[in-house]
Amino acid sequence: MPDFQAWTTRILKRTETALESLLPTATIAPERLHAAMRYAVLGGGKRVRPLLVHAAGEVCSAPPENLDTAACAVELIHAYSLVHDDMPCMDDDVLRRGKPTVHVQYDEATALLAGDALQTLAFRALSRAGLLADPAAQVAMVHDLAQAAGSRGMAGGQAIDLASVGRQLDRSELEFMHIHKTGALIRCAVVLGARCGSALAAADIEHLDRFGKLVGLLFQVVDDILDAEGDTATLGKTAGKDAAHDKPTYVSLLGLARSRAYAGELLDQALGEIEPLPASQRLAELARFIVHRHF
Amino acid sequence: MPDFQAWTTRILKRTETALESLLPTATIAPERLHAAMRYAVLGGGKRVRPLLVHAAGEVCSAPPENLDTAACAVELIHAYSLVHDDMPCMDDDVLRRGKPTVHVQYDEATALLAGDALQTLAFRALSRAGLLADPAAQVAMVHDLAQAAGSRGMAGGQAIDLASVGRQLDRSELEFMHIHKTGALIRCAVVLGARCGSALAAADIEHLDRFGKLVGLLFQVVDDILDAEGDTATLGKTAGKDAAHDKPTYVSLLGLARSRAYAGELLDQALGEIEPLPASQRLAELARFIVHRHF
Repeated sequence: MPDFQAWTTRILKRTETALESLLPTATIAPERLHAAMRYAVLGGGKRVRPLLVHAAGEVCSAPPENLDTAACAVELIHAYSLVHDDMPCMDDDVLRRGKPTVHVQYDEATALLAGDALQTLAFRALSRAGLLADPAAQVAMVHDLAQAAGSRGMAGGQAIDLASVGRQLDRSELEFMHIHKTGALIRCAVVLGARCGSALAAADIEHLDRFGKLVGLLFQVVDDILDAEGDTATLGKTAGKDAAHDKPTYVSLLGLARSRAYAGELLDQALGEIEPLPASQRLAELARFIVHRHF
Repeated sequence: MPDFQAWTTRILKRTETALESLLPTATIAPERLHAAMRYAVLGGGKRVRPLLVHAAGEVCSAPPENLDTAACAVELIHAYSLVHDDMPCMDDDVLRRGKPTVHVQYDEATALLAGDALQTLAFRALSRAGLLADPAAQVAMVHDLAQAAGSRGMAGGQAIDLASVGRQLDRSELEFMHIHKTGALIRCAVVLGARCGSALAAADIEHLDRFGKLVGLLFQVVDDILDAEGDTATLGKTAGKDAAHDKPTYVSLLGLARSRAYAGELLDQALGEIEPLPASQRLAELARFIVHRHF
């Protein structure tokens, strides 16, 4: 088994290639829309969700080509949500990954349509004929993704997030928001990866599903910690961007020390879920990487 | 066979019921998002696409319940596109079907998310387990819808439309725009209906596909005629809303008489395509209805 760093580099590279070939080239009409879609997706991003798809695929010995498609579908949903989230009527962000956001680089209408078309492209990718030998399993993948992305998943989480600005959320409300906003799609990445290979027992899928749920939450808790720490260190402020936007975070609710302890608990629980599964080392490494990526 | 009027009334009623039960109730969190989604979809609209799904379903003796699901999926895509199209960064419309548009009734962020979640819901509906006895055919339906809705279909048509405001389009450019903007989804409605029942010969599917393409174009030509005539009659102007927005139309390009003649030609061609097919009377009636709905 190659080491984690080498594996990550390889998966990032093949994900970029797969996204590159899935996105229509900017020479096909409508050119501007296609250019904006490519701008939104290519050449950046941590690609956490594609990494999770591929790591989960090891548990079921999935063909890497199938995993590429599932990874692209999840990443396209993630990318569309960022494009729309950055728009003036939402978070009104002008920078993303150090580049101007799509509506700044192009215009608002193009950003709106690019986000819309990226979502559609995700479902187009996942419904490619013959992706899985078992078409019923493929239908289930489409349903999983739609469930995770929709009003009772990611889009719903964004609505709850919007409604929470300036309000005092308690811990269970904050958790409910994150389980939807970022958690649902991260969880879906794990489940889709697990569906790409040989059929797993229902109990194993459940372990992976719970692992995905825990990692989704873990990802957010760590994000809040990094946000708070980053700003404290570099700007001399005690709180970061979310706090400045008056958005509730784990750190604002629990404090740094208890947030770190909570992240540790979530990691242990997540690792416990996949321990009984064969070929789950990569998932375990990835969960640890999510916690330790910057501290 | 019940008369066309009775059939239409019955399909509209069952489509409303199906949409009603597919959309999450507004008492489920996030309540405001779910309320906005229901507001955008229920209680209005001509439901041309659901009618086409059901009429095409008669050709393959499709179970009405399958057709309901396909009809809802297409209508949800249509509804999402209207919500986003009405937003300030696009057409900036404040009224739709005599009611305030979604971003006016709620707010822009909610309209953005509601449109996003309606698109997702369309794919969720179409990927319901067991919708078709043949899951490979169901995967193909998902792919058809994604193809029709995406950057090389409806969303692409809207991008071309945006880019055309204030420009002089020639007839082939105008046709290219409409084939994408409204045509792709109308065509898809016919094809999805045709996939819901017993498998048709490839040649029959092709006839239906060409019928759908012609009806999609016909729909737009008639729309342009109605827009021009309506305003001429009621406002004493020679051109309607599209001309006022400096948008190219068939009427502005060909004039009223030649536009009417073109609509007649398209209708004849469309009827010719489905003439060899059994049980295609309803599709023929519907095509005639689209032409004669107001004049």
